[in-house]
Amino acid sequence: METDDLDYLDDFNNGKQMAQGKDSIEKAFRDTKVPPWTKQITVRSMVTGFILSIVFNFIVCKLNLTTGIIPSLNVAAGLLGFAMLKAYTAFLQKFGLLKQPFTRQENTVVQTCVVASSGIAFSSGMGSYLLGMSPLVAAQADAGNTLINIKKLAIPWMMGFLFLVSFVGLFSIIGLRKKMILDKKLTYPSGTATAHLINSFHTPKGAKMAAKQVSALFMSGGGSFIWSLFQWFFNASDDCGFASFPTFGLKAYKQKFYFDFSMTYVGCGMITSYLVNLSMLFGAVISWAFLWPWIETKKGIWYGADLDQKSLHGIQGYRIFISIGMILGDGLYHVLYHAGYMAFILIQRLSGLPLSTETEPELSTNYDEKRRTEFFLKDPIPTWFAATGYIGFAAISTIGLPHIFDQIKWYYVVLAYIIAPILAFCNAYGSGLTDWSLASNYGKLSILIFSNANGLEKGGVISGLASCGVMMSIVSTASDLMQDFKTGYLTLSSPRSMFISQLLGTAMGCVISPLIFWFFYSAYQVGDPNGPYPAPYGLVYRGIALLGVEGISSLPKHCFALAISAFAFAFAINIVTELLKRFDSKYKIYRFIPNAMAMAIPFYLGPYFVIDMCLGSLILFVWKLRNKQQAEDLGPAVASGLICGESMWGVPAAILSLANVKAPICMKFLSYKDNARVDSFLSAPAPN
Amino acid sequence: METDDLDYLDDFNNGKQMAQGKDSIEKAFRDTKVPPWTKQITVRSMVTGFILSIVFNFIVCKLNLTTGIIPSLNVAAGLLGFAMLKAYTAFLQKFGLLKQPFTRQENTVVQTCVVASSGIAFSSGMGSYLLGMSPLVAAQADAGNTLINIKKLAIPWMMGFLFLVSFVGLFSIIGLRKKMILDKKLTYPSGTATAHLINSFHTPKGAKMAAKQVSALFMSGGGSFIWSLFQWFFNASDDCGFASFPTFGLKAYKQKFYFDFSMTYVGCGMITSYLVNLSMLFGAVISWAFLWPWIETKKGIWYGADLDQKSLHGIQGYRIFISIGMILGDGLYHVLYHAGYMAFILIQRLSGLPLSTETEPELSTNYDEKRRTEFFLKDPIPTWFAATGYIGFAAISTIGLPHIFDQIKWYYVVLAYIIAPILAFCNAYGSGLTDWSLASNYGKLSILIFSNANGLEKGGVISGLASCGVMMSIVSTASDLMQDFKTGYLTLSSPRSMFISQLLGTAMGCVISPLIFWFFYSAYQVGDPNGPYPAPYGLVYRGIALLGVEGISSLPKHCFALAISAFAFAFAINIVTELLKRFDSKYKIYRFIPNAMAMAIPFYLGPYFVIDMCLGSLILFVWKLRNKQQAEDLGPAVASGLICGESMWGVPAAILSLANVKAPICMKFLSYKDNARVDSFLSAPAPN
Repeated sequence: METDDLDYLDDFNNGKQMAQGKDSIEKAFRDTKVPPWTKQITVRSMVTGFILSIVFNFIVCKLNLTTGIIPSLNVAAGLLGFAMLKAYTAFLQKFGLLKQPFTRQENTVVQTCVVASSGIAFSSGMGSYLLGMSPLVAAQADAGNTLINIKKLAIPWMMGFLFLVSFVGLFSIIGLRKKMILDKKLTYPSGTATAHLINSFHTPKGAKMAAKQVSALFMSGGGSFIWSLFQWFFNASDDCGFASFPTFGLKAYKQKFYFDFSMTYVGCGMITSYLVNLSMLFGAVISWAFLWPWIETKKGIWYGADLDQKSLHGIQGYRIFISIGMILGDGLYHVLYHAGYMAFILIQRLSGLPLSTETEPELSTNYDEKRRTEFFLKDPIPTWFAATGYIGFAAISTIGLPHIFDQIKWYYVVLAYIIAPILAFCNAYGSGLTDWSLASNYGKLSILIFSNANGLEKGGVISGLASCGVMMSIVSTASDLMQDFKTGYLTLSSPRSMFISQLLGTAMGCVISPLIFWFFYSAYQVGDPNGPYPAPYGLVYRGIALLGVEGISSLPKHCFALAISAFAFAFAINIVTELLKRFDSKYKIYRFIPNAMAMAIPFYLGPYFVIDMCLGSLILFVWKLRNKQQAEDLGPAVASGLICGESMWGVPAAILSLANVKAPICMKFLSYKDNARVDSFLSAPAPN
Repeated sequence: METDDLDYLDDFNNGKQMAQGKDSIEKAFRDTKVPPWTKQITVRSMVTGFILSIVFNFIVCKLNLTTGIIPSLNVAAGLLGFAMLKAYTAFLQKFGLLKQPFTRQENTVVQTCVVASSGIAFSSGMGSYLLGMSPLVAAQADAGNTLINIKKLAIPWMMGFLFLVSFVGLFSIIGLRKKMILDKKLTYPSGTATAHLINSFHTPKGAKMAAKQVSALFMSGGGSFIWSLFQWFFNASDDCGFASFPTFGLKAYKQKFYFDFSMTYVGCGMITSYLVNLSMLFGAVISWAFLWPWIETKKGIWYGADLDQKSLHGIQGYRIFISIGMILGDGLYHVLYHAGYMAFILIQRLSGLPLSTETEPELSTNYDEKRRTEFFLKDPIPTWFAATGYIGFAAISTIGLPHIFDQIKWYYVVLAYIIAPILAFCNAYGSGLTDWSLASNYGKLSILIFSNANGLEKGGVISGLASCGVMMSIVSTASDLMQDFKTGYLTLSSPRSMFISQLLGTAMGCVISPLIFWFFYSAYQVGDPNGPYPAPYGLVYRGIALLGVEGISSLPKHCFALAISAFAFAFAINIVTELLKRFDSKYKIYRFIPNAMAMAIPFYLGPYFVIDMCLGSLILFVWKLRNKQQAEDLGPAVASGLICGESMWGVPAAILSLANVKAPICMKFLSYKDNARVDSFLSAPAPN
């Protein structure tokens, strides 16, 4: 039993075993040739990518302008890309015209292109920061409705703005690629799931274990899809349905402790390591069971008693800033550590000392891992290229942006491009651990900083909102595309073909996204709260800018101090872990120290998804106890299926939402007292 | 695969394989001596039975007087009996004073005694027909509040009445014992589950397969208990919670097509044969999807448009009488067939012809079955004894009852005792197939017949209600105690000790039940709809009697004709099956002909429990496809666990209900439209 116990501890600390399984996927693909990167990116793949980009941009844009809630589309992009190209190649093959077979690498390239372009639809802020500049939204706020704080929307400058800000992000992240995927072995649950799906589609016939895994993936995917479909019927409005199930009672529900029946996060929990899941649970309990309720007892003292739950002046302010503080603490530690380490090596090299071997990635004995690493490193993208690209695009942006927005000074842009890579790192790291991208939070932080720098009189609202675009493009791209690199890693796709696909996808997005937005904007009163396209986030983002112009003093009491403490706490945790790693080789206590980044994410979002993920962990744990081999072989496939099934449902659900079809039933949860009132209300004759 | 297919067909027709499993339970008990019947029934077992009888009578009585809904208590009786006797014997053993070990037969005897006595609390009608005679209830009805149609309640006559009517039932059923359990191999799901539980408690250590089965039973039982507990929290009032989950939409829910998440019936479905489950599904679809909706289109033509859903003058009348018609058709066919067969054998014997071997029960090669049959037949109760007992007690009852109720003529009682065994057979047969006892329905039928015979002026209400007691005691005893005989069969308990235990239990019930009722009746206004003990069924039963005095003409239009058609249909189905059995030895189509009794039960109750049971069937079917051996070994244990877990929750749930503790949350299902109304209602400030 002792070796078993040790195994569990290894699993506890990283998800690699789960993400690969002992029985090799790549062995099944041994006889399938991997085409060179130039053949992975083809005309047909880009045409497919373009068509899907239009479809997905349309879906995302319309959702942006209605509810503002966007599902993750990675999986759907992978599947639809497969379906279209497969149909096309099968058709050609029938007439003997197929010259190049359809490979999983090509599939990944299509998926990457679509994700990059539809990512723009989100990060372009057509439903948030850009819309927040428009006169209609400005008229709805109490202050700041002055000429200098308004910018009329128009296609030319919007398209120009997108081209200026969207490409920088791509260069900021390629450098992080190896760090995240090879060294840190982050799991990127969505990316992993997409890769499993794509691998499943392309698995050569005859591989027995692969066939089992494919069948497990489709079974769990089908189940998850049907379950999501079933849930839909009971979700007639907000606060209805399984997603609002007060599993642990109504009081716990108010503190967001409930199981929301989302198979996506159960699947994520199966892919993510035990330590990350438990860290999140720990963070969720600390914040939502103790810290927030305690701060809420200060209502009326620390912050106004009559504030809305969502006001940054109130409890929501604490939530966002403490969580950002902690994430930044963790992120900055890693950046400094990495920088320090690099400096150390440089000094060693310069002084002629022998190099420490620690930089070399450990050589794995695992066949899959070896082969994947080989392909991931095969077509390198040199660091000088990334650095030059980043600096070059940043320079163009620095010159261009003040021409679009008079309110922005060039040195603001430079400052933003200095901060951005750190935040991008934080977000890519966090989403690698937990699958959550908090891009919009970093955007909000940026609004606060840069709207304050200008002040209301000098157009602080516009400068804040515009800087949000700079920041969000980088930060959001960093996590989205790192997910894609994970998919690429697991499908042996070349980073080079992926990068070019990302570039092309981004360019598509910069053109398609404003055009589709304009289609709605010219036809409807977008941003009118009573119209069909209320785009609620427009006003929210403008509101943050209005808060920003007032400065830190406008934050609720002690909020800044608490955020700084959280920052310090995260930093300290990392130092303690590092020290234990170096000096405690006996008990290895460091393996049980929670991960600060993982702790911080539920601080803001609430514990509900953590409960899903811990359930996933628990399922995997019990499965391993009962049949370790089977759990390791089929676990990742089942987890990917759970994620893919619910994601696939996202597409019909979005179409239903666009067509304004409402679910027929509301599964509502009422307290005993409310229920009695409702019963007597319903038994009275209806007014119509 | 061909033999496998044949196996499935066998399973399709009877549940015996499931109820026993291929791996023998009895082999585990091989070295455990079965005590003679005189040692199975002990002083300590009767003392335990007496104590539990008081507890259970109290629970049942209070539930009778509040909601009128009584959970099945078989399993709880088995478990508590075990716990008490085990504690007692373990205590004695510790001091070396234990002379006779505690056996599973003794456990079964206790369980039987408790079931018999608490069964009286239900069939004594303290919350239904007897209460319906009282002046307070009479004052609530529109008619019949005359001296001759009222009887003041008092302990002496009530106790006398119970003693007169309760023992006859026992004798009516011992004769059916072999027919039901050995020949028909009926499953009696609750009885089977109780037996598995008792066997599990007493399994000798070291038996490997038995240990697996015990663990499967406790795992599924624990799961089912926790699930029931969880469900409770969401069930703040009627129409709340999982039991009202409109799984297939609100429209289907209105026709009672939904999955009510009851693990009891999922478990029952696993024990019951596929044919019975599918027959029920067929019946449910015919009636609730076609027949009732069609009749409802005649609302205002065939019956009054303003009638309550539950009025026997309306749609409920059709449901009850058509279902009774069908059950009687099936039951009468079997009675006549049996009688004809007996006559045939008698004639053969008298004419000296060689006996047909068909009467011999087939000799099974299955070890468990052989051993169980051996013990079941070991201590015979002769037919002359049963017949003498029945006639004797019926005679006493015939003389005694008219002394208690002037309104009853002695020939009514005689008539009732002639009809009763047929109905008892129907009910015992039906509950053997489906686990449902429809005793109260037969009671209602009896009210109609005998209240009509007297008419309102001659005290028809009282004569109807009193006859209901006669009928219900017999019919309800028949199914309850046949479940116990099934338990006895599966635990190798002697029918003789069981019978004596039933006699003693019945006697206890006749004394305890009226005393506990009086405890409430003297302290509260029992039957007052606004008081703490509304006992809703009191008025319902009186209402039926008032309907009865008006005669068949008061039934809704065509109801009688449809009921007769259902009767004929059930009869015809049986004849067709019998003919096919005899003449179609090639295709064996008879195996696919639905069972009329099983079809009829959802006619009245609705499809919801059928859906549970079919799910159980489906689970078993898939399990067998994947691992036939495991499914056969562990299936009955898992099914029993599901039944036992939910039943055990019945006890704390009843206590919570008695203490008037309400669940904190209502999980409510509202249509989209209602939900919008409720949302706007709730967002308005509360009145208090």
